[in-house]
Amino acid sequence: MSSSAACIFCKIIKGDIPSFKVFESDKVFAFLDIQPLSRGHALVIPKYHGAKLTDIPDEDLLEILPVAKKLAIASGATDFNILQNNGRIAHQVVDHVHFHMIPKPNEHEGMGISWPAKESDMDKLKALHEEIKSKM
Amino acid sequence: MSSSAACIFCKIIKGDIPSFKVFESDKVFAFLDIQPLSRGHALVIPKYHGAKLTDIPDEDLLEILPVAKKLAIASGATDFNILQNNGRIAHQVVDHVHFHMIPKPNEHEGMGISWPAKESDMDKLKALHEEIKSKM
Repeated sequence: MSSSAACIFCKIIKGDIPSFKVFESDKVFAFLDIQPLSRGHALVIPKYHGAKLTDIPDEDLLEILPVAKKLAIASGATDFNILQNNGRIAHQVVDHVHFHMIPKPNEHEGMGISWPAKESDMDKLKALHEEIKSKM
Repeated sequence: MSSSAACIFCKIIKGDIPSFKVFESDKVFAFLDIQPLSRGHALVIPKYHGAKLTDIPDEDLLEILPVAKKLAIASGATDFNILQNNGRIAHQVVDHVHFHMIPKPNEHEGMGISWPAKESDMDKLKALHEEIKSKM
């Protein structure tokens, strides 16, 4: 199991830093966000330490979404976002993979999203399709 | 297997509507977003039809993140966001669960996030902690 002595989330998993833990299994840990965007905002993390999704073995990812689902149900939220950020520019602050479950009770609470969609360029998409398929 | 005759993503899964498919297994389907926010923007969906994460059986969720990880690697993105929206107010447009893998190559492309964090209120969090734990 990968762990980092300097990582705040690894310390939370170990219990060296207290948290509002709501779920724990062999591979996954979940706790309330202490600077919530809305009531019920919680985090699900793999115990395996890695900064980005691409650093985490598949077997350590399997239980994440079932636990995020449980959190959503337990929070009572009907509308909510699941968000996982990779990299500073993508809004990641702590370098240990974490999935937010953020209830969206109204326009003002919860996360805000902006969506600068590009024009569809079918020729570019066709070329990209071949490239990505070949790498999957 | 739950499916909806009216659902555009169920039609894509069946092949009744063409898509830039990049991955398919028994339970999961992945394709390029045709109105991308950035180069490589793709969607991973469970084949099981359900509008929200809370509608999908756990077994249909297990493979989603490993496939999102594959997509991120195949796209070549180093920074990216994983996003799944539940409900109109939470920015959901198509009522079939879908996970976006959105590369964030620079400030202008990819998704924009706003983060209206609340003040930490430890008493409220403590009460909420008991409530959520009891429902998990």
